[in-house]
Amino acid sequence: MSVLVVGSTALDSIKTPKAQHPRLLGGSASHAAVAASFFAPVKMVGIVGRDFPKRYIRLYERHGIDLAGLQVADGQTFHWAGEYEVNLNNRRTLTTELGVFETFQPVLPEGYRATPYVLLANIAPALQHHVLDQMRRPRLVVADTMDLWLNIALADLLRLLRRVDVLVLNDHEARQLTEVDNLVVAARKIHRLGPRFVIVKKGEHGAMLSGPGGWFLCPAFPLARVVDPTGAGDSFAGGLIGYLASARGGIEANLRLAMLHGAVVASFCCEGFGLTRTTKSTRSQVRERVSALRQMISLGRPVQG
Amino acid sequence: MSVLVVGSTALDSIKTPKAQHPRLLGGSASHAAVAASFFAPVKMVGIVGRDFPKRYIRLYERHGIDLAGLQVADGQTFHWAGEYEVNLNNRRTLTTELGVFETFQPVLPEGYRATPYVLLANIAPALQHHVLDQMRRPRLVVADTMDLWLNIALADLLRLLRRVDVLVLNDHEARQLTEVDNLVVAARKIHRLGPRFVIVKKGEHGAMLSGPGGWFLCPAFPLARVVDPTGAGDSFAGGLIGYLASARGGIEANLRLAMLHGAVVASFCCEGFGLTRTTKSTRSQVRERVSALRQMISLGRPVQG
Repeated sequence: MSVLVVGSTALDSIKTPKAQHPRLLGGSASHAAVAASFFAPVKMVGIVGRDFPKRYIRLYERHGIDLAGLQVADGQTFHWAGEYEVNLNNRRTLTTELGVFETFQPVLPEGYRATPYVLLANIAPALQHHVLDQMRRPRLVVADTMDLWLNIALADLLRLLRRVDVLVLNDHEARQLTEVDNLVVAARKIHRLGPRFVIVKKGEHGAMLSGPGGWFLCPAFPLARVVDPTGAGDSFAGGLIGYLASARGGIEANLRLAMLHGAVVASFCCEGFGLTRTTKSTRSQVRERVSALRQMISLGRPVQG
Repeated sequence: MSVLVVGSTALDSIKTPKAQHPRLLGGSASHAAVAASFFAPVKMVGIVGRDFPKRYIRLYERHGIDLAGLQVADGQTFHWAGEYEVNLNNRRTLTTELGVFETFQPVLPEGYRATPYVLLANIAPALQHHVLDQMRRPRLVVADTMDLWLNIALADLLRLLRRVDVLVLNDHEARQLTEVDNLVVAARKIHRLGPRFVIVKKGEHGAMLSGPGGWFLCPAFPLARVVDPTGAGDSFAGGLIGYLASARGGIEANLRLAMLHGAVVASFCCEGFGLTRTTKSTRSQVRERVSALRQMISLGRPVQG
């Protein structure tokens, strides 16, 4: 079954201590849509300006992403510039130029409205609402968010949580949203705000799922070299919903394995700048790494060694 | 089979933002020996002063710990005082009074020398060597250490690594020892220093095992309330070796499950000051929590929910 992804479509200029890359393809929807496309057909909703490079359109197309919902508007594409410290967990934003996003109103093509799996990737909660308002009874709604919306659009976000099945957010955001330091207690509080499933992302330390079946502690794939973590969280959410859309059986039965698939796509994302490494990955590389990651949480006697 | 534990036996004065407790039973050997005692008979090697409270001797005895190797010397028991910040990951040492530890030379009772499982808990590497020198071909040697020895006794520690099967250390120590930031690369370098198995502890984020069978990513048990993490790492190592000593089959086949047992005893440790919560735990509580933790890394459909 297919996945609808709404979020930001951006150009990212990224600086790390070792390199800098201007105007990479970025944005939460770009990362999430490419990640989901490894497993299921994807329909994207977003907006870009006239300056948006044609090669990035072709990149979406190579991943079979339906672009009927991608508006091309007069003006500049959303541009984000950020700089990472030696410890790649610390980054600061250098520039945020909203461009065409300033007046974006997502209008869903008719063919999008019955998509069963919906990922509201990180974007203003008002826009996430606006997309949901146009959907016909989706089977699953997954939402991601960021600290910015907790600061400037909390009421919209709280209203959104009542419409969401799975909320994905990072540890800092979970603490900020609940004003609780302990993540076990924070997750309990978030359930009371609406979502049946809460996934707290912890970067290189993996992600924790809280749901009716208890906790699932999903590891991150251990990498010997992290190049650029931008978009890893979006890739995780995209891989997760893509896998769910491709799997037989209910959400509960597949969500744990879906998280491993999300973690693996996120690991490819971290191995290159922007989407450069992710787009070079193949389905069979993803499958191999999922299988390796499963072995890393298995108690069974290892096959080799 | 039985476990020999050598390490520090101390009185700990611990301050957190919520409470303070003077002269608790502490030290790496105390935590590790009590943790191991849930699974196997334990022989302890250490030293205390004349001021060491009788109730703490009785506590060891209640856990069936063989104290033939515990010297009682003229002078004061090793005393450590530390203070935790609101974020319990950050602590600072207020006082370290070595007392009788200053001149400690562990002499193993004859009945200790053929113990098959040896845990060299955190203590000066010279003393760890001294204990190993007195052992007859142990089946397994596990060693823990701390940043202090990396700073002041690195040569002794490097020599020790060639005599050790399993090295347990935390993420900061792994980085300091190898001068490598990435833990995957750091573990590879540590293998080249000797140990066949390397376990990198990451506190609330669990622990990573690197060995001939690849990685095992062991989660920490998620706690809704952490009271005092002092001794959690020692409890982890003690629970791990205790479980190994109790299990049939080889080290490789049991080490992953042994880590879960260590993680569970460490979780009880964190729920009270010093050893207060650990000593109140029962074997069946440990078993239940191990079973819950297994479920939290299992991909199977949860039993309930």
